[in-house]
Amino acid sequence: MRRNRALLLAMGLCLVGDPGHADEALRARARALFGPLEPPAASNVAEVALGRRLFFDTAISADGRTGCVSCHLPGQWGADGRARSPDARGRLTSRNSQTIFNAVGQPALRWVGDRDTAARQAEGSLTGSLGFASTADALPLLRQRGYEPGFRAAFPGMAEPLSTATYGRALEAFQATLVTPGRFDDWLRGDDAALGPLEQQGLQTFIDTGCAGCHRGPRLGGEAFAKFGVVKDYWTETGSTDRDTGREAVTRNPADRHVFRVQMLRNVARTAPYFHDGSVADLREAVRVMAAVQLGRTLTAAETGAITAFLESLTGSVPAGFSTPADPG
Amino acid sequence: MRRNRALLLAMGLCLVGDPGHADEALRARARALFGPLEPPAASNVAEVALGRRLFFDTAISADGRTGCVSCHLPGQWGADGRARSPDARGRLTSRNSQTIFNAVGQPALRWVGDRDTAARQAEGSLTGSLGFASTADALPLLRQRGYEPGFRAAFPGMAEPLSTATYGRALEAFQATLVTPGRFDDWLRGDDAALGPLEQQGLQTFIDTGCAGCHRGPRLGGEAFAKFGVVKDYWTETGSTDRDTGREAVTRNPADRHVFRVQMLRNVARTAPYFHDGSVADLREAVRVMAAVQLGRTLTAAETGAITAFLESLTGSVPAGFSTPADPG
Repeated sequence: MRRNRALLLAMGLCLVGDPGHADEALRARARALFGPLEPPAASNVAEVALGRRLFFDTAISADGRTGCVSCHLPGQWGADGRARSPDARGRLTSRNSQTIFNAVGQPALRWVGDRDTAARQAEGSLTGSLGFASTADALPLLRQRGYEPGFRAAFPGMAEPLSTATYGRALEAFQATLVTPGRFDDWLRGDDAALGPLEQQGLQTFIDTGCAGCHRGPRLGGEAFAKFGVVKDYWTETGSTDRDTGREAVTRNPADRHVFRVQMLRNVARTAPYFHDGSVADLREAVRVMAAVQLGRTLTAAETGAITAFLESLTGSVPAGFSTPADPG
Repeated sequence: MRRNRALLLAMGLCLVGDPGHADEALRARARALFGPLEPPAASNVAEVALGRRLFFDTAISADGRTGCVSCHLPGQWGADGRARSPDARGRLTSRNSQTIFNAVGQPALRWVGDRDTAARQAEGSLTGSLGFASTADALPLLRQRGYEPGFRAAFPGMAEPLSTATYGRALEAFQATLVTPGRFDDWLRGDDAALGPLEQQGLQTFIDTGCAGCHRGPRLGGEAFAKFGVVKDYWTETGSTDRDTGREAVTRNPADRHVFRVQMLRNVARTAPYFHDGSVADLREAVRVMAAVQLGRTLTAAETGAITAFLESLTGSVPAGFSTPADPG
């Protein structure tokens, strides 16, 4: 009887683990692989204010009703919930709109890494989603809408403070404030209760499965390029009908065919649909696809569930400054 | 009896597979992931000749007996077979000497990606392995050894053709000729017999295991950075005593701790020892370590053997131009 009780106790310990010890080993590994998301750096208040105003202004576009905010919505966690998005020319963008939260500071931006800073991304959007014939075409509209004092305040001492370059810089300054730390960061910093047992188990599975090989750094991704479809072609699993060649379109290098930027996973549970073509709507299915095509692994339902629970713990809060301003001035 | 024969035939087919069909699927995937190594681009003959002479000249160093060739030997496939290498100041270099074959054209060089072109790598070696106090200290020696006509011929029209910048450019031009395609490329281009069954099986295992997630492109690597030790710390498996922080030393970003460049695998079977610290001498063991620490996989002996056989098929030929010149002029 005593022996049975000892056995039951041992079984109990096996099931529960030694939480203190196991947590610390997992935390040390997670710190080494990811590290917490740092709050935004101090920034020029006038530049941020200008960027914020520009971001939400839907008049600065070819159709006069499209703005950055059209594809990066507060209610959609800085993305837009659509597979592809209508632009100011009434066409669909070529790839899924990505969240701008935590995006500033990545070594390259957009699905194929064709813009290297958020400032250049914003400048590029003038002739892209915002539909102007040239970037300079936006400047008269900016003047007309009374932006000159804002640019002068944000970029004092410049001979010509209102330009497409400063337009980009202001938007980058604003977006740099959109950092969303969450429970995962609390846990990394030592708060044991910040992640539940299933989330911790999911983190362990995420690492053990090999996901962290690419999805690393404080954003759990965003730092590297990878071929989408290592073990098998991605469209065999996603059902994508358009076989996007990815970064090859930028580099003209056949080795970059179907290569995309590794997506960051911060707030991933709030930014469906997934992949460059928005072909997968469900996070569990996205996890299954990634394990299958990148790592050749068939995850069990329990593994997929645990990883998904962990990914849900990466949801932060929509930054306070990220809402349509009551006063657009 | 007829049924038994049919059964035996079917079993035979299962064992052998349908070579034509299976090969084509594997080939298509391998082409998508890697692609053949292209022969060197046409180059300036005078620049290449100058670079070649500089490469093999062991007099242009602080101790007068060290040259590029000292750590990149013809008999060692452009590496040197040592864990770390003595430099011209009699110290050991901080990390393992990497092969220079197929190295030109990678987006960054050295273990931590701290030099972005082979020209800058060569310039850096003047004050590094070659031991000069400053790069300019090498110039009088170059003049003294009669290099001026060679620089004038290689860089005509320049006001000052002999400089550390042109020194780097000449060495890059020479190294760009050191491209070593091999049987794998023949197979990728359609020569079925170029890879044996075990090598093809190893290629399939290499892909299915997830190795190709990082080791991609025509060099099977060299294009990205990765944390060494995703699932567990690398030193737990390699026995490394020095826990090199890797790229963090360059970027000062804690997310880059233990991050190194993904090594290319061309000629890997000829460039032991492995890893940044040369801590593993055997290719099979290196394969086992990589699967364990990067992908959390315990490979069977058969899997390790097949992957190793495939890696051995990546051995090309030492380029004809890569040998100590009989006439150093």
